[in-house]
Amino acid sequence: MSQPFLYNRRVSFADTDMAGILHFSNYYRYMEETEHAFWRSFGLSVNTKDGDRPITWPRVASSCEYFAPAKFEEDLVIALTVANVGDRSVTFEFEFRRESTRIAIGRTTAVCCTIEDDEFKPVSIPPGLREKLDAACGAPSAD
Amino acid sequence: MSQPFLYNRRVSFADTDMAGILHFSNYYRYMEETEHAFWRSFGLSVNTKDGDRPITWPRVASSCEYFAPAKFEEDLVIALTVANVGDRSVTFEFEFRRESTRIAIGRTTAVCCTIEDDEFKPVSIPPGLREKLDAACGAPSAD
Amino acid sequence: MSQPFLYNRRVSFADTDMAGILHFSNYYRYMEETEHAFWRSFGLSVNTKDGDRPITWPRVASSCEYFAPAKFEEDLVIALTVANVGDRSVTFEFEFRRESTRIAIGRTTAVCCTIEDDEFKPVSIPPGLREKLDAACGAPSAD
Amino acid sequence: MSQPFLYNRRVSFADTDMAGILHFSNYYRYMEETEHAFWRSFGLSVNTKDGDRPITWPRVASSCEYFAPAKFEEDLVIALTVANVGDRSVTFEFEFRRESTRIAIGRTTAVCCTIEDDEFKPVSIPPGLREKLDAACGAPSAD
Repeated sequence: MSQPFLYNRRVSFADTDMAGILHFSNYYRYMEETEHAFWRSFGLSVNTKDGDRPITWPRVASSCEYFAPAKFEEDLVIALTVANVGDRSVTFEFEFRRESTRIAIGRTTAVCCTIEDDEFKPVSIPPGLREKLDAACGAPSAD
Repeated sequence: MSQPFLYNRRVSFADTDMAGILHFSNYYRYMEETEHAFWRSFGLSVNTKDGDRPITWPRVASSCEYFAPAKFEEDLVIALTVANVGDRSVTFEFEFRRESTRIAIGRTTAVCCTIEDDEFKPVSIPPGLREKLDAACGAPSAD
Repeated sequence: MSQPFLYNRRVSFADTDMAGILHFSNYYRYMEETEHAFWRSFGLSVNTKDGDRPITWPRVASSCEYFAPAKFEEDLVIALTVANVGDRSVTFEFEFRRESTRIAIGRTTAVCCTIEDDEFKPVSIPPGLREKLDAACGAPSAD
Repeated sequence: MSQPFLYNRRVSFADTDMAGILHFSNYYRYMEETEHAFWRSFGLSVNTKDGDRPITWPRVASSCEYFAPAKFEEDLVIALTVANVGDRSVTFEFEFRRESTRIAIGRTTAVCCTIEDDEFKPVSIPPGLREKLDAACGAPSAD
C-alpha cells in the first residue's frame, strides 16, 4: 500500500447542526472534496473526458463510522487510500483525524460511466486514470 | 395584486447550525422550493423547454431580511408573490411566517435563459410561462 | 416486523449536482428527515428531554447503496423500518423508491445521549421512546 | 478604506446544481467562510466570549448580485471589506472573482448578540473585536 493522500479541511459553520457538531451527512461531502483533490494532485479532474466521451463517477455505495464529534473551525486531516480498483469501479477509504484523535472512517465506491441518451453507461476506467489509481493502490488491481 | 402562493416548509435538522437556528443561507433554498412548487401548481416545471430549447433561470440577484430566528421542526408558511415580470426576467418576493410571527422576507430575480454552446443565453420568457406569471402578478408587466 | 413508516420527499433543485442527479450525500439528509417524521408520527420529537436531561442522538454509523439515480422534482417514497433497538442505540433502515423502481437503501445507527459538560454521554433510551421503537421494530430487542 | 481581506475558495462538486453551476445559495456559505477566515486572521473566532457571555452574530440581512456563473473546481478569490461598523452590528461586503472576471458581489449584516434564556439579546460589540473591525473598516465607525 502506498502512502495515503492527505487533505486538510476546516469545519465550516454552515456544516454544523444544532447539536453543535459537524452534521453526519457532511462527512460525505468532505470525503468527496478529498477525492477531487486527489485527482487534482495528478493534474487531473474527476470531471473528465475519454476522447469525446464525458466521464462521470456515480456512487454505488458509501458508508461512514463516527468515533468522535468534529466541531466548528477544527482543522481535520483526511487521509485517502485507494482500497480497490476494478475494471469499472474504484473504492476509496478515508480516515478523518484531528491531531491524534480519530474522528471517523468512511468509504465510497463509484463506477466509471459515460453518458449516452441522458443515461449513465458503465465503461472501463480510461488507462490514464487507471494507471494513477493502480499506482496509488500499490497493489495489482482485483476485479 | 393576486393572492400569494403559499408553501409549507418544516425546518430540517440538517438545515440548522450550531447557533440552534435555521442557517441564513438555507432561507434561499426554501425560497427556491417555494418557487418550484408555484410552477408545479400550474402543471409546469421551472426546468422546461421552449420547443427544442431548454429553458433555465439563473439568478441575477437575491436578498433576505431576517426578523426572528426559525428553529428545528417549526412549520413555516412561505408566501410567494410575483413582484415584477420583465421581457426576460422575473422577480419573486417571499414572506416567511410562523403563525402570526414574521420570520423573514426575501426576494430573488432570475433571467430566462436557454443554453447555447454550454453558455446561458437570455431569451424572452416563453408565452406559456409568461401568461402564468402575468396572471399571478396581477398587473401589467413593466420592463 | 411491523409495517414500515412511509415518508414522501420530492427532490429539491439545490440537492442535485452538476451530474444532474440527487447528490449522494443528500440521501442521508432525506433519511434523517424520514426519521424525524417517524418520531413526529408519535407526537414526539427526536429533540427531546428525559426529565431535565436533553436527549440527542449522534450517529455512530451510516451507509447507503445506490441502485438508480434520482432526479429533480421526482417524488420519492422513503420507507423506514426499525432494524434493531439496543439499550442505548437504534438502527433504522430506509428504502428509497420512485414508484416501482428501487433507488437506494440506507442505514443509520444512532446512540441515545444526554449532554454533560458540553460532551455527549450515552444513556439508556428513555422508556417512552423505547416503547415506540420496540413496537415499530415488532421484535424483542437485541442488545 | 484598508486593503480587503482575501480568501481562496475552490468550488465543490456538491455545491453545484443540475444547471452545472455553483448554486446561488452557496455564495452565502462562501461569504460566511470568508468572514470566519477574516476573524481567524486576527487570532479570533466568530464564535467567542465576552467575559462569561457567549457572543454570536445572527444575520439581519444578506444579499448577492450574480454577474457570471461559477463552475466546479474553479478557484475563486473572495475579497471581504468591512463596510460599516455600528455599536451592535457589522456589515461586510464581498467580491467574488475568478482571475479578472467579476463573478458576484454580496453583503451581509449581522448583529452582535449574547444568549439569555435561550434567546438572542443584542449587545455592544466587545472592544477587542470592535478594534479589529474599525481598523479593517479604515474609517470612523458610523452608527
